[in-house]
Amino acid sequence: MAQSDPASVKMRTESDTLGQVEVPSNSYFGAQTGRCLINFPIGGVNERMPVSQFESTERAMRLILNLLQKPLIQAMGVLKKAAAEVNQEFGLDAKISAAIASVCDEVISGKLYDEGHFPLPIWQTGSGTQTNMNCNEVISNRAIEILGGTLGSKNPVHPNDHVNKSQSSNDTFPTAIHIAVAIELNLSLKPAVTQLRDALMSKSNEWKDIIKIGRTHTQDAVPLTLGQEFSGYTQQLTNGLQRIEAVLPHVYQLALGGTAVGTGLNTRKGFAEKAASRIAQLTSLPFVNAPNFFEALGSRDAMVEVHGALNTIAVSLMKIANDIRFLGSGPRCGLGELNLPENEPGSSIMPGKVNPTQCEAMTMICAQVMGNHVAVSVGGSNGHFELNVFKPMIASNVLRSIKLLSDGCNTFTTNCVKGIKPNRANIAKIMNESLMLVTALNPHIGYDKAAQIAKTAHKNGTTLKAEAMNNGISEKDFDEWVKPEKMLGPT
Amino acid sequence: MAQSDPASVKMRTESDTLGQVEVPSNSYFGAQTGRCLINFPIGGVNERMPVSQFESTERAMRLILNLLQKPLIQAMGVLKKAAAEVNQEFGLDAKISAAIASVCDEVISGKLYDEGHFPLPIWQTGSGTQTNMNCNEVISNRAIEILGGTLGSKNPVHPNDHVNKSQSSNDTFPTAIHIAVAIELNLSLKPAVTQLRDALMSKSNEWKDIIKIGRTHTQDAVPLTLGQEFSGYTQQLTNGLQRIEAVLPHVYQLALGGTAVGTGLNTRKGFAEKAASRIAQLTSLPFVNAPNFFEALGSRDAMVEVHGALNTIAVSLMKIANDIRFLGSGPRCGLGELNLPENEPGSSIMPGKVNPTQCEAMTMICAQVMGNHVAVSVGGSNGHFELNVFKPMIASNVLRSIKLLSDGCNTFTTNCVKGIKPNRANIAKIMNESLMLVTALNPHIGYDKAAQIAKTAHKNGTTLKAEAMNNGISEKDFDEWVKPEKMLGPT
Amino acid sequence: MAQSDPASVKMRTESDTLGQVEVPSNSYFGAQTGRCLINFPIGGVNERMPVSQFESTERAMRLILNLLQKPLIQAMGVLKKAAAEVNQEFGLDAKISAAIASVCDEVISGKLYDEGHFPLPIWQTGSGTQTNMNCNEVISNRAIEILGGTLGSKNPVHPNDHVNKSQSSNDTFPTAIHIAVAIELNLSLKPAVTQLRDALMSKSNEWKDIIKIGRTHTQDAVPLTLGQEFSGYTQQLTNGLQRIEAVLPHVYQLALGGTAVGTGLNTRKGFAEKAASRIAQLTSLPFVNAPNFFEALGSRDAMVEVHGALNTIAVSLMKIANDIRFLGSGPRCGLGELNLPENEPGSSIMPGKVNPTQCEAMTMICAQVMGNHVAVSVGGSNGHFELNVFKPMIASNVLRSIKLLSDGCNTFTTNCVKGIKPNRANIAKIMNESLMLVTALNPHIGYDKAAQIAKTAHKNGTTLKAEAMNNGISEKDFDEWVKPEKMLGPT
Amino acid sequence: MAQSDPASVKMRTESDTLGQVEVPSNSYFGAQTGRCLINFPIGGVNERMPVSQFESTERAMRLILNLLQKPLIQAMGVLKKAAAEVNQEFGLDAKISAAIASVCDEVISGKLYDEGHFPLPIWQTGSGTQTNMNCNEVISNRAIEILGGTLGSKNPVHPNDHVNKSQSSNDTFPTAIHIAVAIELNLSLKPAVTQLRDALMSKSNEWKDIIKIGRTHTQDAVPLTLGQEFSGYTQQLTNGLQRIEAVLPHVYQLALGGTAVGTGLNTRKGFAEKAASRIAQLTSLPFVNAPNFFEALGSRDAMVEVHGALNTIAVSLMKIANDIRFLGSGPRCGLGELNLPENEPGSSIMPGKVNPTQCEAMTMICAQVMGNHVAVSVGGSNGHFELNVFKPMIASNVLRSIKLLSDGCNTFTTNCVKGIKPNRANIAKIMNESLMLVTALNPHIGYDKAAQIAKTAHKNGTTLKAEAMNNGISEKDFDEWVKPEKMLGPT
Repeated sequence: MAQSDPASVKMRTESDTLGQVEVPSNSYFGAQTGRCLINFPIGGVNERMPVSQFESTERAMRLILNLLQKPLIQAMGVLKKAAAEVNQEFGLDAKISAAIASVCDEVISGKLYDEGHFPLPIWQTGSGTQTNMNCNEVISNRAIEILGGTLGSKNPVHPNDHVNKSQSSNDTFPTAIHIAVAIELNLSLKPAVTQLRDALMSKSNEWKDIIKIGRTHTQDAVPLTLGQEFSGYTQQLTNGLQRIEAVLPHVYQLALGGTAVGTGLNTRKGFAEKAASRIAQLTSLPFVNAPNFFEALGSRDAMVEVHGALNTIAVSLMKIANDIRFLGSGPRCGLGELNLPENEPGSSIMPGKVNPTQCEAMTMICAQVMGNHVAVSVGGSNGHFELNVFKPMIASNVLRSIKLLSDGCNTFTTNCVKGIKPNRANIAKIMNESLMLVTALNPHIGYDKAAQIAKTAHKNGTTLKAEAMNNGISEKDFDEWVKPEKMLGPT
Repeated sequence: MAQSDPASVKMRTESDTLGQVEVPSNSYFGAQTGRCLINFPIGGVNERMPVSQFESTERAMRLILNLLQKPLIQAMGVLKKAAAEVNQEFGLDAKISAAIASVCDEVISGKLYDEGHFPLPIWQTGSGTQTNMNCNEVISNRAIEILGGTLGSKNPVHPNDHVNKSQSSNDTFPTAIHIAVAIELNLSLKPAVTQLRDALMSKSNEWKDIIKIGRTHTQDAVPLTLGQEFSGYTQQLTNGLQRIEAVLPHVYQLALGGTAVGTGLNTRKGFAEKAASRIAQLTSLPFVNAPNFFEALGSRDAMVEVHGALNTIAVSLMKIANDIRFLGSGPRCGLGELNLPENEPGSSIMPGKVNPTQCEAMTMICAQVMGNHVAVSVGGSNGHFELNVFKPMIASNVLRSIKLLSDGCNTFTTNCVKGIKPNRANIAKIMNESLMLVTALNPHIGYDKAAQIAKTAHKNGTTLKAEAMNNGISEKDFDEWVKPEKMLGPT
Repeated sequence: MAQSDPASVKMRTESDTLGQVEVPSNSYFGAQTGRCLINFPIGGVNERMPVSQFESTERAMRLILNLLQKPLIQAMGVLKKAAAEVNQEFGLDAKISAAIASVCDEVISGKLYDEGHFPLPIWQTGSGTQTNMNCNEVISNRAIEILGGTLGSKNPVHPNDHVNKSQSSNDTFPTAIHIAVAIELNLSLKPAVTQLRDALMSKSNEWKDIIKIGRTHTQDAVPLTLGQEFSGYTQQLTNGLQRIEAVLPHVYQLALGGTAVGTGLNTRKGFAEKAASRIAQLTSLPFVNAPNFFEALGSRDAMVEVHGALNTIAVSLMKIANDIRFLGSGPRCGLGELNLPENEPGSSIMPGKVNPTQCEAMTMICAQVMGNHVAVSVGGSNGHFELNVFKPMIASNVLRSIKLLSDGCNTFTTNCVKGIKPNRANIAKIMNESLMLVTALNPHIGYDKAAQIAKTAHKNGTTLKAEAMNNGISEKDFDEWVKPEKMLGPT
Repeated sequence: MAQSDPASVKMRTESDTLGQVEVPSNSYFGAQTGRCLINFPIGGVNERMPVSQFESTERAMRLILNLLQKPLIQAMGVLKKAAAEVNQEFGLDAKISAAIASVCDEVISGKLYDEGHFPLPIWQTGSGTQTNMNCNEVISNRAIEILGGTLGSKNPVHPNDHVNKSQSSNDTFPTAIHIAVAIELNLSLKPAVTQLRDALMSKSNEWKDIIKIGRTHTQDAVPLTLGQEFSGYTQQLTNGLQRIEAVLPHVYQLALGGTAVGTGLNTRKGFAEKAASRIAQLTSLPFVNAPNFFEALGSRDAMVEVHGALNTIAVSLMKIANDIRFLGSGPRCGLGELNLPENEPGSSIMPGKVNPTQCEAMTMICAQVMGNHVAVSVGGSNGHFELNVFKPMIASNVLRSIKLLSDGCNTFTTNCVKGIKPNRANIAKIMNESLMLVTALNPHIGYDKAAQIAKTAHKNGTTLKAEAMNNGISEKDFDEWVKPEKMLGPT
């Protein structure tokens, strides 16, 4: 596993308004990106080094654990392309606009990200300015290269005057967040939740006739079918999908056009509308201008709202995965109603043990999402005046939670739910022993008498029927009244 | 301040399936309520004592800090009334039904709650069974009283067989939560948020021509109007109102009809539909049956979702209140742009000090709501099988957060926002000194040259104009290009 | 239940530096308290009304749910007494000092709180200034009364110049918080946790010979004794007690002497030291001066730290209560190892049902404490400069969490743990069926072979012994090697 | 940037008790690791692929964002070494023991981790069993290689029977967590916090004579020195260091020796004691046996406790960073008391703008840590019976929070605190304008009269002195009484 020698990396000089900075000669990024790598060695690199030249896994991890996610950079590509094209309508040189748009396609494809040109960490300025400038630098340098110029010359494509034209970090970065989150919710989370919901629904249908004991307070209750039980999980996720839909409208509202403080200074009338429209076209999602740019810049409420939906979905999934692992507990000393797939040896010391590991991964994900939610809420509540300075952290958590829930739902579907088998024998056995079938007697003999029968049976370790007959109920009546299969719905 | 002697309270005997319990003779509640008061002395009472006979403030506080909220009990009245009336259609004796319905009106009015007949704490069984039984007991005893019977006799109105007919704690308690929360969101929170939003909008309109410095990263930025700044707050709350609307559909879905585990055992076909319809009629809110009773009983996701909206609103209000207190900081050593109402002496040691106390109460409320949200999420995620046993805690936090936000918005409107006055002189003075007006030069001389001018002025402590002229810009051009009043929107 | 007519309450006029305010004539509080009741109608009163004249439970609840807790006011009495006595050493008139000290005894006893003279809500100024002034007003008025003066005259005892002498809200309020929290931790939480720990330890000892199945991942594992299992819970609480001890040192550090911003302006050299020493004497707790008053005023870190310990204890208790309810699940379709006390009928619809309600109350409390922790952390992180303005909210949550955990431990001990009985028959039955006894074969035949035996037995529904013998292990060896009673410790 | 073709990766076959699995032929890990990579494609890989052959940054990120941290694997090396050496004392073949110990040194050095042999994600089984087996596999295979055997043959070094001898995932994984966390707290966090504390203390000393306005409630208050203000921050971090010390004792308690459920099955008497002692020796940290293995396996309370300390430190740092950015706000329209280092251009649109970006990175980190704390608490509270299945998630968050806080403190020290310069001119100017100097008049003329003077000056926009003289105070008295330099301490 060959490693590069950091000392051998060739460097070139870039400059910004604070002076000169060295960057790796084969990188497209420029001075402000290089400066950020030096100033924020948090969980990351403190030497000059492009991402693509990892010395080691450890090094990569330190860097990447803190890297802003790819969907966010791709979304920057979308908006920079839209801006360049609209700027051309307002007078930007056509050749420059075309070069910018062409490079943006490389950003959107993920190619430039994968090559390591966007190495900035989450833990930078809270506005994402350094990532906005990273994008401006990379796009301008790559466009310069395409147009035959010299990297770092800012000529003929200037990062601020051309690539960032009509824009500010304060409107581009939240716009990119909204684009990335909208895409990930639509293309990643919704299909994953749907897939899991459908797998649960399929089990629900398959098991619609398996009558089992219900449990409330973890105690025996009246019966239901296993299919009914799983239909509840199905509904939780159907509701989860509705929750995603409910938060999308505010995500579709874009800050672009507000520039530095929301007034739209240095844009032209019509720029904001045309840019949002172009972004909608590029993404096939119904993006529009935010109804108020001051809100769209100063608050990150829409992300707090989105994460509220993620939090609710995590709460649902925690409940579902907990139920499944308890129903599958055993094999001989637990509830033993479900057999979960045996994916791996479960113990390094106990031979033959198999554990509900997919449930465990899922519930760990849920706990993480619940924690991420607090981070996002704290960040969202601490904005000041015309800009919230917790944006990279907020974006990173929202995207990470979406990713974890999506991947979690997918693996839980494939490696757990689809392979669950009911343990029919045990389900029937324990259900028939339950004292709570007594509830069917209420309409016939009243709550108080029925209670007396159940309590006596519990005390004596006898059956309900025996005690019912001791209390003067005929065998025929009992057999007619107490039928689990008649206890599954209204009469 | 006369106090009753606990020893002198007269008691009567009530019974349940576990045996006899003494309760105060003038109370309508019965054995199970009395038992709960004994078994859960958490932050509460450990002697026989109705709430109405407070010995002291301390005693009242210990009890009431932990009491389930009145709206929840009133909502139980609504559903018990609806159930009684529908049960009559399915054969419940008309006289009994009418007596129950009549008592329910007293519950709905709040009279019986105010008289102390619902003394149960939050910290009871997690299903709210004891509160459901408290309601059944009070309604049956009061109905017995009306019908001339003996308190505690369960005759002619039995708490389980008649008042709780076709019901279970597992469907009534979540139904009551949904009814209470829907009512409080509609009648308490929405008007309060609307009132605050309108007060902010009124200020926004009033101040639409006051040009001031913008601030990003807490640093000087380009100008905007004070009206524009407040329009952002207005939009945050408009969005907040939309967030409340977005969560209401799941709140309108009622569990009633699911009974013990979701199957609807011991109900009649049509009961659930008729009951929801009657509740909708009684409350004038569009309640319907939950699409799946197993979800409606086993999860409390809808409450986690509601609190997600409350959390987002808290995040918005924290931002708004923080901004207002910082803009009002001073009077001589702060930002000094706003003068907040002087409501009370601010210091016990510094004479003449006045503080932004309404902002402080508001931000404390927001922190509390953010904390309550975690409690609700933890509770929601920990349900098992057919019943979630964190319901009284969840309900209590949702209702408390609604109450705090509602009252907080009302007092913040009345005692702070309405009385804010802009400090026009200071606003104008500091805005004109800002170096960030330089941004207006970008389109004319490019970002890099503009930066040079701003940096020199900052270094030398001079004005932008002086340094611009030193850099070859004519006075005439500068004056035409750099006009704050032309920096407030696109061109 | 007679109610007073608010219109009939007699009022008198008090004044502060903002002008005149009416207060109930029989109250000791004055203008600033009255002003606060008007300005902060949050969850509280919006008319002139002393607490002692509740119209109704609802009214009381609205007021009291938001009232600052009694221990905090009693702690203010302690520090005001200490300050008055030390001030006398520095020249305060002896008669005034004695009168103040005497009234402070009435505050410390709780009498004045119970009479309703401290009606202020949590949701006031974030410094607690209004509560400090409430104390100053009540003490001065009551001292005036004792000395034969006129209520409201501020003569001969002035609330600021005498009662508040050498003090500021910014040092008194955090001092009172520390005193109250130290007392509650020592006198309420530690005994309660100890009591529960001892009850668990007693069960652990009692059950030291009951061998049962262990469970990891909710799946069957190797055996342990029920006593061993409960010894883990015991240790969790022993550690919890150590966690309380570990946070006390910072709680014992008092802000008193820092006055307005930490400099100690308007105090005399030696005041701080003497005052802390006097407070230590009055409370028998080792209070000292904070090592740095700027930290002691500007941060509330010590309370965040305390709540971190409460959070950890809540996490422990959640685990313990969850285990107990699952071990007690059944009676016929659950794990069925423990029989919990039958405290109340568990269901309004299922006759004879009994539920682990004490576990439910406990886990609800734990969720609440985990939420309160976030509220406290958000408040603690948002202080600015020389004062944190989230203090009443922080104090209220810390004191509420202590109260809930204390009461929760007490009732859980009495109403649950002490009454738990092991279900010996079922414990033995399922343990002996477990396949995980196979682990004892590892040292003899290796992990891989042992796994083969266990897996075959699981697949075939046979016993370990049968499959072991099929794999060439002699009956004698098996019986000697696989003995649950020999699997309970190292060899 | 060359990429490997996944199809070209050579594979070999490994097996476990569930059957055969293919793994890359040059990897040391075996069947269970390969199985986990297939079963948990969460944020990670779903094809056969060692980490060392990243196709792209995106691929690396997806994998590594979810990778268990290096310190945890290194800690596994420590404990496996200790166990091998102690096992030799109890009969393990000396050659095998030596080979294992030698490979452990390669694990401890980080070499094997960096080469990609530990590719498992956080989102696996909640016990970390798969990581324990990953370690067992890598160590056995590498030892086999050293001893001239065939990879995958499990001969002569078996992953379970030799490497895992006397161990279980349920005691090794928590032991590794405790070792890793203890090391990171001692070697990473403590030095970083100390460095920042010392930098703040140095500023505090340097600025001990700069008198400035104090601010409470964000409003002007009485003066203090800039040195005093920074001494408060210094104390917060000194307390933070004490908080770390306070949680270490429980971290030093190791689970090793408890094996599967806490009983120590399959260990020899003395193993646990000797192993802990050896780990202490290897790490130079005072590790000991946990006092109760059932607690040490079943709960993760010690990690919740540790994160409570991290949460408190985050709260402190949020306060400090917030203060510093507000004190540095401006340059012309803010408080303007501090000049922060100009590290990078602050805006893509506003030329010359410089922002408090280090404060922003720090406060984002603090929000993340506050969120991670909730994830850890939720995980800690959800353990069941003899094993907590949230361990990889808990460990990952604790280690990540330590890393973020450590790196955050280091960069904040270097790139912010050390370069801060006071703006002496502005500090003096605004302090002298403050009306709160009036507080010095209290002891001379009383609170009420002093308030009158301050309020009149505020109303009229005049100076305190002018209004004091209007109220009959002589110029000489005023000048003698109101001296900021005499207001900095007790008299």
